[in-house]
Amino acid sequence: MGGPGVQGEPKDSGGLGPASHEASEPKGAAVAPPQFVMAYYPEPVARLIEALQRLPGIGPKTAQRLTFFLLKRPTAEVATLAESLVQLKQLIVHCSVCFNVTEEDPCRICRDPQRDTRALCVVEEPNDLLALERTGEFRGRYHVLLGALSPLDGIGPEDLRVRELLTRLEADQVDEIILATNPSVEGEATAIYLAKLLKPLGVRVTRIARGLPVGGDLEYADEVTLSKALEGRREMS
Amino acid sequence: MGGPGVQGEPKDSGGLGPASHEASEPKGAAVAPPQFVMAYYPEPVARLIEALQRLPGIGPKTAQRLTFFLLKRPTAEVATLAESLVQLKQLIVHCSVCFNVTEEDPCRICRDPQRDTRALCVVEEPNDLLALERTGEFRGRYHVLLGALSPLDGIGPEDLRVRELLTRLEADQVDEIILATNPSVEGEATAIYLAKLLKPLGVRVTRIARGLPVGGDLEYADEVTLSKALEGRREMS
Repeated sequence: MGGPGVQGEPKDSGGLGPASHEASEPKGAAVAPPQFVMAYYPEPVARLIEALQRLPGIGPKTAQRLTFFLLKRPTAEVATLAESLVQLKQLIVHCSVCFNVTEEDPCRICRDPQRDTRALCVVEEPNDLLALERTGEFRGRYHVLLGALSPLDGIGPEDLRVRELLTRLEADQVDEIILATNPSVEGEATAIYLAKLLKPLGVRVTRIARGLPVGGDLEYADEVTLSKALEGRREMS
Repeated sequence: MGGPGVQGEPKDSGGLGPASHEASEPKGAAVAPPQFVMAYYPEPVARLIEALQRLPGIGPKTAQRLTFFLLKRPTAEVATLAESLVQLKQLIVHCSVCFNVTEEDPCRICRDPQRDTRALCVVEEPNDLLALERTGEFRGRYHVLLGALSPLDGIGPEDLRVRELLTRLEADQVDEIILATNPSVEGEATAIYLAKLLKPLGVRVTRIARGLPVGGDLEYADEVTLSKALEGRREMS
């Protein structure tokens, strides 16, 4: 094209490069790094794009899409989102007993006299606790470790709420501790560590079952899961 | 399991159902609808999850993951994100000339005396303008329609900045109008509408080329793109 205002030179790729930080972007899409983005966007737009990119699973393209979406939304809606963010950090604390997230300390579950104090379910994170609560199956109490053992990341027992767990066991009469850490390498390591630590205290220590997920397909299950499912087989009643 | 605190009854699926609102979630994953989420989360957590779910491409699971991620981040970082959101709406306005997003009105491009006023590139949205700016190929000015014609959604010419485009053409000496609306049904319809409207004014009206994307593969190109690529073929120099 040789029209007015259109340069005829070959395209200068300049600061553009295959610098995609986002796995979900189509391969080969050239994504501008932040400092390049800054040059073209008005500063408040660039700042929000940068802030959104710090969130997990959100890369430059998604951050840009969200920002331009928000630009088109009513101010009140965006203000509500901003206010929700501020309040999250202002109002939420960890329960001093179980380390679940809560507005009131101790949390709703620790305060509930209906919950069985003899069963204690140990999880990695507050959202694991919530996943278990959603089943409605467990009526005992919880202990949130706020992490899992990961020597490679330098996370040892002293970084988890293990000492607080031992303190709770001294105070309360607990008959069973259910280790509900994730079925991952870190979660397994944490469960094994806790089992060794807790069994000498004379408490029953159990681990949640590994097996085929409901609705899953035997044919497509991995070998480890299938082995665990065989190992954990139970008598039909 | 018959341990203390663990109910033996079959799992009550209760409020849980296949109510996934998020296409990216694995199929069959039971996602709790918001009102169900509310019952288990502390209110500030539930409020942020709800607010995040209003964003495009963010469903209940992603909203939950982002919220728990933010809970673990420093307060200052979350405050920065909240402040960026507020400032986006406070500081950004549309340029009164071209309707690009800007902090100062008129925008940087409309104020730039180096830009060629004889070429005007019409785009749908501010991010389309930015995509073109990143190429560094176009030195003319822009006009942002803030949408595209879409009769099914009730979006007609009066909802776009078409009248403002005509006013600009009266004031400025424009030799060429490049229609750079998207190569979608709505974008094509908008381009055809504008071409019909603008050609009688004696201005040269062009449309950006449709063809194979650079780095693409002929074998995997769709028929329409391939037809357009053939139709738009050019003499080798």
